[in-house]
Amino acid sequence: QYITRAEFEDYKKSQPKVDWKGAPKISSQDGKFSFKVRGRLQIDYNSIDQDEPITGDPDINDWEARRARLGVEGVIWYDWDYKFEIVFAGNDTDVKDAYIAYAGFSDWNNLKILFGQFKIANSLEGMTSSRFITFMERAFFIEAFEAEPRALGVGVHAGSDDDFGWSFQSSYNGPNIGDDGVWDDGPSIWAVRGTIAPVNTDDAIVHLGASYRSRNNGTEDGVSALYNYEARPGLHLADKFVETEPLGESDQYWGLEGAAVYRRFSVQGEYAELSADVPQMYKRMAGGRSINPDYTGWYIFGSVFLTDDMRNYEAKKGEFGRVKPNNPFDIRNGGWGAWEIAGRWDSVDVGADASALLAAGHDCDQCGDEEGWTIALNWYPTAYTRLMFNVIGTDIGGAFNDNDGADISGFGMRGQIDW
Amino acid sequence: QYITRAEFEDYKKSQPKVDWKGAPKISSQDGKFSFKVRGRLQIDYNSIDQDEPITGDPDINDWEARRARLGVEGVIWYDWDYKFEIVFAGNDTDVKDAYIAYAGFSDWNNLKILFGQFKIANSLEGMTSSRFITFMERAFFIEAFEAEPRALGVGVHAGSDDDFGWSFQSSYNGPNIGDDGVWDDGPSIWAVRGTIAPVNTDDAIVHLGASYRSRNNGTEDGVSALYNYEARPGLHLADKFVETEPLGESDQYWGLEGAAVYRRFSVQGEYAELSADVPQMYKRMAGGRSINPDYTGWYIFGSVFLTDDMRNYEAKKGEFGRVKPNNPFDIRNGGWGAWEIAGRWDSVDVGADASALLAAGHDCDQCGDEEGWTIALNWYPTAYTRLMFNVIGTDIGGAFNDNDGADISGFGMRGQIDW
Amino acid sequence: QYITRAEFEDYKKSQPKVDWKGAPKISSQDGKFSFKVRGRLQIDYNSIDQDEPITGDPDINDWEARRARLGVEGVIWYDWDYKFEIVFAGNDTDVKDAYIAYAGFSDWNNLKILFGQFKIANSLEGMTSSRFITFMERAFFIEAFEAEPRALGVGVHAGSDDDFGWSFQSSYNGPNIGDDGVWDDGPSIWAVRGTIAPVNTDDAIVHLGASYRSRNNGTEDGVSALYNYEARPGLHLADKFVETEPLGESDQYWGLEGAAVYRRFSVQGEYAELSADVPQMYKRMAGGRSINPDYTGWYIFGSVFLTDDMRNYEAKKGEFGRVKPNNPFDIRNGGWGAWEIAGRWDSVDVGADASALLAAGHDCDQCGDEEGWTIALNWYPTAYTRLMFNVIGTDIGGAFNDNDGADISGFGMRGQIDW
Repeated sequence: QYITRAEFEDYKKSQPKVDWKGAPKISSQDGKFSFKVRGRLQIDYNSIDQDEPITGDPDINDWEARRARLGVEGVIWYDWDYKFEIVFAGNDTDVKDAYIAYAGFSDWNNLKILFGQFKIANSLEGMTSSRFITFMERAFFIEAFEAEPRALGVGVHAGSDDDFGWSFQSSYNGPNIGDDGVWDDGPSIWAVRGTIAPVNTDDAIVHLGASYRSRNNGTEDGVSALYNYEARPGLHLADKFVETEPLGESDQYWGLEGAAVYRRFSVQGEYAELSADVPQMYKRMAGGRSINPDYTGWYIFGSVFLTDDMRNYEAKKGEFGRVKPNNPFDIRNGGWGAWEIAGRWDSVDVGADASALLAAGHDCDQCGDEEGWTIALNWYPTAYTRLMFNVIGTDIGGAFNDNDGADISGFGMRGQIDW
Repeated sequence: QYITRAEFEDYKKSQPKVDWKGAPKISSQDGKFSFKVRGRLQIDYNSIDQDEPITGDPDINDWEARRARLGVEGVIWYDWDYKFEIVFAGNDTDVKDAYIAYAGFSDWNNLKILFGQFKIANSLEGMTSSRFITFMERAFFIEAFEAEPRALGVGVHAGSDDDFGWSFQSSYNGPNIGDDGVWDDGPSIWAVRGTIAPVNTDDAIVHLGASYRSRNNGTEDGVSALYNYEARPGLHLADKFVETEPLGESDQYWGLEGAAVYRRFSVQGEYAELSADVPQMYKRMAGGRSINPDYTGWYIFGSVFLTDDMRNYEAKKGEFGRVKPNNPFDIRNGGWGAWEIAGRWDSVDVGADASALLAAGHDCDQCGDEEGWTIALNWYPTAYTRLMFNVIGTDIGGAFNDNDGADISGFGMRGQIDW
Repeated sequence: QYITRAEFEDYKKSQPKVDWKGAPKISSQDGKFSFKVRGRLQIDYNSIDQDEPITGDPDINDWEARRARLGVEGVIWYDWDYKFEIVFAGNDTDVKDAYIAYAGFSDWNNLKILFGQFKIANSLEGMTSSRFITFMERAFFIEAFEAEPRALGVGVHAGSDDDFGWSFQSSYNGPNIGDDGVWDDGPSIWAVRGTIAPVNTDDAIVHLGASYRSRNNGTEDGVSALYNYEARPGLHLADKFVETEPLGESDQYWGLEGAAVYRRFSVQGEYAELSADVPQMYKRMAGGRSINPDYTGWYIFGSVFLTDDMRNYEAKKGEFGRVKPNNPFDIRNGGWGAWEIAGRWDSVDVGADASALLAAGHDCDQCGDEEGWTIALNWYPTAYTRLMFNVIGTDIGGAFNDNDGADISGFGMRGQIDW
């Protein structure tokens, strides 16, 4: 009447497996199914001196839920993945990932075919989850050039975590789920990104990458919809002091990326250009002058862990992942979590061709550039929680920009948890 | 120091049970509790020639998340069920099922009392989940007569899966959750549906059913709210080319249903009539003529599985359920999933009494009828995933319909997963 | 080849623990992680005679989903809690709890530091979950003085369940998540609440408490936002017949609480005052007269369980919790659940200084008071389900209130489940 090993092993195999990744990931032992609830909370406080004498915009002192998301992800019958995540930060909702993926070729370089809404692959920081970015906000150009949007479409992802790692993403997309029903001809977006990691060890990482995106904004009620380009000065509750009016029927983006990590030290930078195609009408109004403004942006940052920790690179995706502190914060038994300081220099210019646009009667009174620095202190008590402190200083420029000469400064703090 | 069988059995009983139904259904072994997260994604592409010379509406080429839902269901203390599911397809949210059910009499013909928001029982295709319908969109009349809405109320469901199966549903309902707070007197809806399955075996099914619904649209700020009747031409991103203005203070619906399945072959059809009660005012304006238009709609379709698979009928609910491929798609070990082709002829007429309505000063310039066909190819790689391809052709008619003579054609594709 | 006890114990420890609290709470055996999905449904029917001859508002007969929520809660790495819950009752969404808490000092009087959006601690009934309140709606003053709102901020909670129990809550908060982005200077709210339970046994409870809140409504576009004060007459679909226009730049609230429970018998009452600071402008317009209206509200209720059940008090939180019927409803084996009857007298007065406000040109035609009674019958079939029946009668008063003399009566019923 005792239990045999065989019987016990059978029982074990019949039981679900639970891996704690914040929330539990429940799987069948045969790999046929898995399921996990996912989500994140980012609670921010911002205090911003908006240089009212120049900008006319009052100072900001306020809280917000920068990100509040809930969703699910799972595997069905070995090869079919899904992810579905929703934003609840304001009174509106907003769907983020909502895709089905076929991963039946995953033995071959983790190849995955995506169908639905997913992130269009451009920019290292754009692809890195908002849970894992080093500063509270991504660099200026990523916001200005919309280098991390999601849209409905089909895509392919592949990559390898080998010593010489690499990743490849490409997709053809239409509108965002939230744009449903507005379009006659939906927008069409084609994007491709490739990265390599010639060094990819436990101690050191070198990442190089490039991406390209071409998009056309489609038509609503027979009229072309137009892209505009705008950026905040480094904190999310701030107003936008550089901003074009909608002017791009279509545009082309390209970007270069690089990063290097050696143990607790890390540097990262990107450069990007965006060429917008302005409607013919404007060109005629400007006396036939060609107006296809080329906008540029770039950033560079360095980060150092004060504790014995390291940024976590995922070569097969070409992005940074979760920092897992070697000694999680533990008030009873000791352990201080991971502590990181970082500094960034950030720049974007959406002021090109402002005089031609003005000549064509286009409203361009905030076309211009901004340059700014951010100093960050990050505390990771555990792998799933983070406190962030950012201090920013941003100069607004541009000969035709009403906000020219403004100096925006402020600080922000964030409490973050994800599951 | 070995583990006895009794001890082991006790342990097993104390452990939760996990059944994989897309997502895991977690239950206590004693049946006292269960819980499951549920949801679905349907990602669509539509390309539609809207016959612009006649309709004036431009062609459509676009993506949408046709359905994106997340929710939960569970059992509490043996006898109390709940289901709560929310739509996140656009920027708005929309609550679908949100009910509490008492199933303590379930030994007696699966009797269940529902309280909250649930589907009002009318029409076989209306009751069949959008995950399991054969074509991308339900038949015209189901949209035109709102034969599958949800509303708050009380209901009773019963049925049997015996060789001679049957089902019965009846409910008294008020407004939809989304209509909250608008009403003085909420709408009141009474509906009943009965079905029988005189043949209900593993090889063959015969389904017959009938349903009736009477509804009154209540008052807002002392004024009667009015129903209108409208239908798309078979793809969801298309415009509505037959449509009445709001004209029904109350209406009565009745419908007949039939379906037969023999192994991989299946036919299904429905016929429905809707009589709308037009406000007295219109009748006076039309010189006392009686204006209670009777609208009609019907469809018939046939489907054949190319693989050795069969539609899945649930007699106790009087609806079709999940297709479970005998050989799920498996690129490594073989297996092609289930493949199905189907064709439908579909018709609805909301043009009755158009001349009288026009005489009464009612705007009726899209009152009319539409007839159309759909050809479908469905691939079910697994029981929880599906790819659909639909081609449609629909003729718009009606002596008073501005769109008379338009011929709408197009195709759609859908990727679907549910959990 | 048998399984040893040591081996078996190891296996047991590696397996997750599942506690059924409506939905399953899944934990790791080491206490490092836990996770639970949570939610509630409250489906209401209201029938209200709004005394149309006086109020001009028509009668109400309607259903609504009074509360429909879904969310998650969990523990990450022993000491970090989170809760995130969203309302889906209408077409909009609304975030309720959305906080991160550090509970690493919990050995010391359950001390918890909260960061994010949580309930501001004021009022016993305000702090008691809507799942556990005795009547369908909380007392008038809790709605009128917003004594149970949630807002983003930092807070501290502590308490003890000892024989002499106590609780303490304090917080500094800004805006609600739904107010994001509207503010220059967000609102600032400071609140504190303390309670004691000098008797806290299985048979008897005595609860005493006091709370204070001071808040300033911040500025939008450089203009002070103003608080207003309004209350429904005891059922949620009724209109508001006492209501001030927005008039408070800032306000101070204080309240006293008391409750006593002896087995199946219970009494509870609260008294609260709110002083609003009216903008200088109004004071000037009223000829320099001081206008800082002091509003008051109070209620008292008694409840008796007809079955051998008792209200469930949580001393360390200073609030009432879940009623757990001793004999859950079971149609097969007997058991009738818990049955409770209760009666409340309820009063609020927001009519102070109405003449001065009118003199200052402020619209005050619904400033006034209401007094009302509620009779309740509650059936708790299980600990997670409840049916409620309420009958109400409310008199509207106030010399300057257009609705003076109106007598609102009605009944409501609710089906509730939570998980």
